[in-house]
Amino acid sequence: MLFFTQCFGAVLDLIHLRFQHYKAKRVFSAAGQLVCVVNPTHSLKYAPTRCAAAQASTEQGILPPCHHHEAVHDPQLVPCTCPLFSCPWEGHLEVVVSHLRQTHRINILQGAEIVFLATDMHLPAPTDWIIMHSCLGHQFLLVLRKQEKYEGHPQFFATMMLIGTPTQANNFTYRLELNRNQRRLKWEATPRSILECVDSVISDGDCLVLNTSLAQLFSDNGSLAIGIVITTSKVHSSEAEM
Amino acid sequence: MLFFTQCFGAVLDLIHLRFQHYKAKRVFSAAGQLVCVVNPTHSLKYAPTRCAAAQASTEQGILPPCHHHEAVHDPQLVPCTCPLFSCPWEGHLEVVVSHLRQTHRINILQGAEIVFLATDMHLPAPTDWIIMHSCLGHQFLLVLRKQEKYEGHPQFFATMMLIGTPTQANNFTYRLELNRNQRRLKWEATPRSILECVDSVISDGDCLVLNTSLAQLFSDNGSLAIGIVITTSKVHSSEAEM
Repeated sequence: MLFFTQCFGAVLDLIHLRFQHYKAKRVFSAAGQLVCVVNPTHSLKYAPTRCAAAQASTEQGILPPCHHHEAVHDPQLVPCTCPLFSCPWEGHLEVVVSHLRQTHRINILQGAEIVFLATDMHLPAPTDWIIMHSCLGHQFLLVLRKQEKYEGHPQFFATMMLIGTPTQANNFTYRLELNRNQRRLKWEATPRSILECVDSVISDGDCLVLNTSLAQLFSDNGSLAIGIVITTSKVHSSEAEM
Repeated sequence: MLFFTQCFGAVLDLIHLRFQHYKAKRVFSAAGQLVCVVNPTHSLKYAPTRCAAAQASTEQGILPPCHHHEAVHDPQLVPCTCPLFSCPWEGHLEVVVSHLRQTHRINILQGAEIVFLATDMHLPAPTDWIIMHSCLGHQFLLVLRKQEKYEGHPQFFATMMLIGTPTQANNFTYRLELNRNQRRLKWEATPRSILECVDSVISDGDCLVLNTSLAQLFSDNGSLAIGIVITTSKVHSSEAEM
């Protein structure tokens, strides 16, 4: 009996995912973009955030920002960059992707243009939606976070980080686009390096910021579709283009 | 002596305006857009807002939304739509523009693409930057407002209203664009009719919303340049275009 109940549950889940995928495809199919359904993860850290702890240590002259370990002897070693957990792992930049995939089970998608479909936007803060995105020979980490910067007023923050150095990150431009209900919101910026802390990018507000009412206007049945495009930024002539 | 002091003050003001205009032109000159320097106005209303008062009256079945007058006998008469003052004026839609120009001294600019340069962004909330924009045979009202939705955390809200009916407003699309420091933020939507209340559009958050840190990233020496484009929206195929 339990087996049948579980089977039925699994079938229902599949139908639900299929339906969400179909809905997203309906919206974005014109561009032939890859749609990826991303489920939320209730964050297990945040008190205090790794960055706050790291920053405090930095002020005391102990560690460079965002290195929350006791001592980093090898400057080429980086701590785990997963924004979800306070993970003690550290390793070289080249193996961060495999660590995130294997230990934290973060999916990786291929393609220059994808659609990130975050489900269950109604879940209480703090919640994260995370995916890795592989294109132009590099891997990027997309983080959508629901967080209460002002108590009782949750906001959504979306940013893209390059799993690479800040110098490498300067070669790219990412664009996040929301499009629904005759409204369109686009955020375009240079990705930050994963060596900088995602928490501080979000607390600085240097990312796409949505209040709850705007997020509701852009979401469809509790899911928010974010179109993502990554390009190489040869010469940053954007200020003159406008 | 007083005369000379005043003359000197006027010359300094002119130099300051000229400098701001020059700076804005430097950024936007590539597109040959018209730059308009808009000075802030400290709002004299807000407690309670006209909309809140009107909404309360509506709930009691007295008046239609945003009509704060005692009784509107002629349904073609609209109240003054100036977001700055609780003005007792009312008249036909066709004369709203001349009322706003003459009584409230709101400037009007011509052209499909203009740059709205809001100065003195550091001034405390509530503050408004307002201009009228004439293009495609219609007049629009652009409102940038600094307001504290959450106490101690001022935010900037920008929206465009058509000085016309909601049906007329549906024929247009407006775009607000911020572009600086290798970041770009675009908001695109159908303008709301001036018959709807600008206060409620802003309190619903159905507009371009900027927190203080983002506003600082986009502003240059205390001035925020917003590029404005208005187009006619024939068929709203934006959702498929993405």
